[in-house]
Amino acid sequence: MNTFGNALKVTIFGQSHAPAIGAVVDGFPAGFSIDWGKVEAFMVRRAPGSSALSTARREADTPRLLSGLNERGQTCGAPIAAMIENTDTRSADYDALRDMPRPGHADHTAWAKYQGHNDIRGGGQFSGRLTAPLCFAGALCLQWLEQRGIAIAARIVSIEREQDAQVSAETVDAGWLRSLTSMDFPVADAPAGERMRKAILQAKDEGDSVGGVIEAYAVGLPVGLGEPMFQGMENQLAAAVFAIPAVRGVEFGDGFAAARMRGSQHNDAYCIGEDGQTRAATNHSGGVLGGLTTGMPLIVRVAMKPTPSIAQAQRTVSLSKGTEQTLAIQGRHDPCIVPRAVPCVEAALAIVLMDCMLG
Amino acid sequence: MNTFGNALKVTIFGQSHAPAIGAVVDGFPAGFSIDWGKVEAFMVRRAPGSSALSTARREADTPRLLSGLNERGQTCGAPIAAMIENTDTRSADYDALRDMPRPGHADHTAWAKYQGHNDIRGGGQFSGRLTAPLCFAGALCLQWLEQRGIAIAARIVSIEREQDAQVSAETVDAGWLRSLTSMDFPVADAPAGERMRKAILQAKDEGDSVGGVIEAYAVGLPVGLGEPMFQGMENQLAAAVFAIPAVRGVEFGDGFAAARMRGSQHNDAYCIGEDGQTRAATNHSGGVLGGLTTGMPLIVRVAMKPTPSIAQAQRTVSLSKGTEQTLAIQGRHDPCIVPRAVPCVEAALAIVLMDCMLG
Amino acid sequence: MNTFGNALKVTIFGQSHAPAIGAVVDGFPAGFSIDWGKVEAFMVRRAPGSSALSTARREADTPRLLSGLNERGQTCGAPIAAMIENTDTRSADYDALRDMPRPGHADHTAWAKYQGHNDIRGGGQFSGRLTAPLCFAGALCLQWLEQRGIAIAARIVSIEREQDAQVSAETVDAGWLRSLTSMDFPVADAPAGERMRKAILQAKDEGDSVGGVIEAYAVGLPVGLGEPMFQGMENQLAAAVFAIPAVRGVEFGDGFAAARMRGSQHNDAYCIGEDGQTRAATNHSGGVLGGLTTGMPLIVRVAMKPTPSIAQAQRTVSLSKGTEQTLAIQGRHDPCIVPRAVPCVEAALAIVLMDCMLG
Amino acid sequence: MNTFGNALKVTIFGQSHAPAIGAVVDGFPAGFSIDWGKVEAFMVRRAPGSSALSTARREADTPRLLSGLNERGQTCGAPIAAMIENTDTRSADYDALRDMPRPGHADHTAWAKYQGHNDIRGGGQFSGRLTAPLCFAGALCLQWLEQRGIAIAARIVSIEREQDAQVSAETVDAGWLRSLTSMDFPVADAPAGERMRKAILQAKDEGDSVGGVIEAYAVGLPVGLGEPMFQGMENQLAAAVFAIPAVRGVEFGDGFAAARMRGSQHNDAYCIGEDGQTRAATNHSGGVLGGLTTGMPLIVRVAMKPTPSIAQAQRTVSLSKGTEQTLAIQGRHDPCIVPRAVPCVEAALAIVLMDCMLG
Repeated sequence: MNTFGNALKVTIFGQSHAPAIGAVVDGFPAGFSIDWGKVEAFMVRRAPGSSALSTARREADTPRLLSGLNERGQTCGAPIAAMIENTDTRSADYDALRDMPRPGHADHTAWAKYQGHNDIRGGGQFSGRLTAPLCFAGALCLQWLEQRGIAIAARIVSIEREQDAQVSAETVDAGWLRSLTSMDFPVADAPAGERMRKAILQAKDEGDSVGGVIEAYAVGLPVGLGEPMFQGMENQLAAAVFAIPAVRGVEFGDGFAAARMRGSQHNDAYCIGEDGQTRAATNHSGGVLGGLTTGMPLIVRVAMKPTPSIAQAQRTVSLSKGTEQTLAIQGRHDPCIVPRAVPCVEAALAIVLMDCMLG
Repeated sequence: MNTFGNALKVTIFGQSHAPAIGAVVDGFPAGFSIDWGKVEAFMVRRAPGSSALSTARREADTPRLLSGLNERGQTCGAPIAAMIENTDTRSADYDALRDMPRPGHADHTAWAKYQGHNDIRGGGQFSGRLTAPLCFAGALCLQWLEQRGIAIAARIVSIEREQDAQVSAETVDAGWLRSLTSMDFPVADAPAGERMRKAILQAKDEGDSVGGVIEAYAVGLPVGLGEPMFQGMENQLAAAVFAIPAVRGVEFGDGFAAARMRGSQHNDAYCIGEDGQTRAATNHSGGVLGGLTTGMPLIVRVAMKPTPSIAQAQRTVSLSKGTEQTLAIQGRHDPCIVPRAVPCVEAALAIVLMDCMLG
Repeated sequence: MNTFGNALKVTIFGQSHAPAIGAVVDGFPAGFSIDWGKVEAFMVRRAPGSSALSTARREADTPRLLSGLNERGQTCGAPIAAMIENTDTRSADYDALRDMPRPGHADHTAWAKYQGHNDIRGGGQFSGRLTAPLCFAGALCLQWLEQRGIAIAARIVSIEREQDAQVSAETVDAGWLRSLTSMDFPVADAPAGERMRKAILQAKDEGDSVGGVIEAYAVGLPVGLGEPMFQGMENQLAAAVFAIPAVRGVEFGDGFAAARMRGSQHNDAYCIGEDGQTRAATNHSGGVLGGLTTGMPLIVRVAMKPTPSIAQAQRTVSLSKGTEQTLAIQGRHDPCIVPRAVPCVEAALAIVLMDCMLG
Repeated sequence: MNTFGNALKVTIFGQSHAPAIGAVVDGFPAGFSIDWGKVEAFMVRRAPGSSALSTARREADTPRLLSGLNERGQTCGAPIAAMIENTDTRSADYDALRDMPRPGHADHTAWAKYQGHNDIRGGGQFSGRLTAPLCFAGALCLQWLEQRGIAIAARIVSIEREQDAQVSAETVDAGWLRSLTSMDFPVADAPAGERMRKAILQAKDEGDSVGGVIEAYAVGLPVGLGEPMFQGMENQLAAAVFAIPAVRGVEFGDGFAAARMRGSQHNDAYCIGEDGQTRAATNHSGGVLGGLTTGMPLIVRVAMKPTPSIAQAQRTVSLSKGTEQTLAIQGRHDPCIVPRAVPCVEAALAIVLMDCMLG
């Protein structure tokens, strides 16, 4: 359903064109002073309308806090609830779509699950807009983690066939992560980023869309975070990341490339670090072994499909008539969801990591 | 922790060298007659010692049923519990390892999490042996799903750099899945399978190990199975599949390849099937949209790393002395875990799908 | 925490003097048309300020719906979220109390749990005001249950030492329950109700408060609803009912009186009813055996303590000074919480029963 | 279902006449040395056959440990699983009962829930025998709590109409609790205990049974343990205690008596203790306010109905014939379940308190 976590429980509600969307964050420790400017800054990174790369839908998207603070403005142990009003909802755009499921969207599957009662407006509860409250929850967790020396960031490693440069294991530290979060279009190699942007704009010009891959990092984690079996770090992170619409795959460390490797290549040997502590000499594991963190940077890669809403004509059916139809999707849509998904992946990581730290 | 599921709850217990390992399956409907021969046949597919490709450890691995049946031998609504005795446990093999974490294993992370109290013998609770009770639970679910016309199977699509042949979308039907489950080394193309086996044996000869990719399928699913947001089909399947040791990535349908595609290529157009029903003309989505099944074959790919236990000397440390050491792992180990992981992936799918069907 | 249920999940948020309180109801079936007039009418029964028996705090307490409906106004499968603004919050009343925990309240225990960061204003998240969103959630469930022929109501069986008349088992039917829900002060015997009201007013006049007992009923239930062991009907109902502040005990059927009985008296013999069906001849069990409903009326009794806020001077301490103090609580408080708790108990029952019906 | 808890998860399995019953305790901290003699001693208190007051069924009931310890015999972080074989199962006793539900038992409700597939032998999963694994789990928790200075015990406060003496609030300390756990028939007043025993034997002689009330205590608890709303201490304790068959009511502190009191009587004033700490001057609340512990002794009372199995003839029906029948229950049954339920209530408390301490 729409609640996630154990010691920290995040509940997301809303639909794209409902009066509001929002989140309830339960289990957040009392006595924490949230920096609301930082929350807003984080959410702006996800917000639509900020560049030619994203949908023209403009929303303030400023969360209104409903509960969770004491009279001094600190968290008080009660659930932190926030809502975001849906102000700019041109529902008429979607009226024609009720009978014709959009390819690549949840329209048809939701129609079947809810016997036709699903909210069709703007994708209803399956809209990418629901990642706004996810980012709200994640923004709180990021601050809490930051106080404990844990930093999280992500970059775009590919858009369509354009790849960012590889980075060495040593590159991944708190300073580099901070630099990533300050970029509009976070990449390691600026020219590669430029090529990716062009790929997006070219697809847009052709009435099409493109996908890409996001790589996210967490540094400063203790050794041994996570639980065995079904609550391993990978299990929990994957379960959280797939809540972001358009995610099609998740991998850790070398991921699918590990399947092409020998054990002698993939195993991370242990050595004694400069601080005298045991550490891994390499990080093929991506910072997770046996579901538990190794203390090395946590590295997760997330594959995102091209935005399903495209201007080009597509084949679909009329559910009422049982006939094949041609559909041309109107309205404002991102030609590529990847840039706006970057903070969403960071938020998902932050929620899981804070839940594990509290558990 | 070690319990998974909502309407159907599977609890796994045990360690590699504890008196026993086992499973408790709660929520299984009453009145079902389990075919125990089929359960055993399914578990034999995972069992060690069946070929040169796997460890020499031989165990009957026959589960002993502890509860869950009425006096007529049918399920009675009570939890179905089973245990598997650990009979062939040469613990002495592992004594030397207590102080020296094996690269690629959970030894060091578990040592940190449990402050040195983790069961080191045979990997303890992090051992691949824990997939035996997972398979037991999965075997029950497979039978229940089969009665509802849902079939599940998996094949090996790659070992190291050797690839199985591609199969067309039309190939994936119940008959083909049945043929896969009857193979020792399930592949679409026998010569490719032969090359994969050779790759495993070659690695073994070199005191090394290899990884690979498993592709699993489920057919006969209704449209709309799954839940939104955090309980989508992908979220749940990923959370279950990562319980299998050595899994490093999970993808659905085109998966990571979707990230290199255009929306116009990746979107599955809708058409009217021969039966007059709405269906997708292609299956790039792998049978899941918005976390809900589309009715097309569910396709999930799982990347498995090379077995971390290798005969070659490796660098590690002595935790007590704080010095670097060389480690040569003795004992019996699979040079490739992929063949034995095939039924484990099927089991994970079966558990999730039955849970969703009951929910 | 603040989320309850399995197939139906109810999350409650807010504090007495936060911007808002609210509820998120997840898992409510799609396609249901909620009668908002009925929801409001139900919530008015709990609302303050309706008579001399309750606090003078007046609030519209009309929930604002945030999500969960499609454009036709029916439930759409998305979580139903609603908020109630806190408009009439005289926080100044509570300023003096920060340092001096009120006897019988959660002030001191919350201060310890949250290290002094708990929201002291109006009792914060421990306020009885949080039962408003509980009633909102319950009101939805009541309508859904009603459509399935299940009716729920409660009456006041005692206030302080004043007792309502006993009712025979035959009295408890849907018609009688309907009559109870239409009463301001639901009792079987009007003169007894009059005596109870007087007891409340007399306590009020003396700057004191009184407790009482509520008896709740559900009729129309199928046989066999509930789950074994930890999810029995009693376990779930008790877990829900204790969410209402001031509840000190819960019993089913004969309850504590059963402990004074012989088996031959307490056992409900089975007989063949007029409809030819098996039924219990009596209902000492209160409609639950082995955690499962018997098909007879479900009967649960709930003991509520006297309102802890009283005008009389009380002994407390100054937490900062470590000295004993005298406290006289100002402000508006119910001399008896029992009448307003009646719909709360009904709501708790409705949530549990709907959850079980969906499960 | 059959799993309970959050940070500590207890799963119970088995039926009265299945091959075995057992428990899986997940989340128990690593590095703990369990005193198995104490576990056995605790379970003997619940075991049948120890006196004329209980059933003649004799079982060793010694749990066999299946997993959870490292090679040094300490807990290792893996789930602790144990089974108890069912050796003395005279199933033939129950053959005649399949068609005729026993009054006061779950036979009929389970028959309806499981469509006739429930395990009828010895009450199946609804048997009081399932409290043996509950006591196993509780015995582990008791030891862990004891190391943290928390003691738990219970006494019998009434059998039928015979009452134990009242004890003053000062009496309830760790020493007194220790004395209670050493008694066969724990009461404050020995002559009262003698009268209670006689009441049981008299009922037995008359082919009847009796109920009673158990009062349980926990001392040494910190202030502020528990969670708000649905996870309050009372919610969790009630949810656990109702897992014990025959429980009909649960109350805390003054419980139902509080409903007859004035606020001025019931409120516990705060004072400064001899140690300079804030404490309550009285303990009407039973150690819980707002779902959180007060630091005073936790006091919970549990009402148990008379054993439903009685030798006297009872009216029931033939489910197959639809006719009324007379039933005389043969076999071995406790004339009073209360003495054997004492450690069960202690176990339920221990599980909840340890879960809260870990959470």
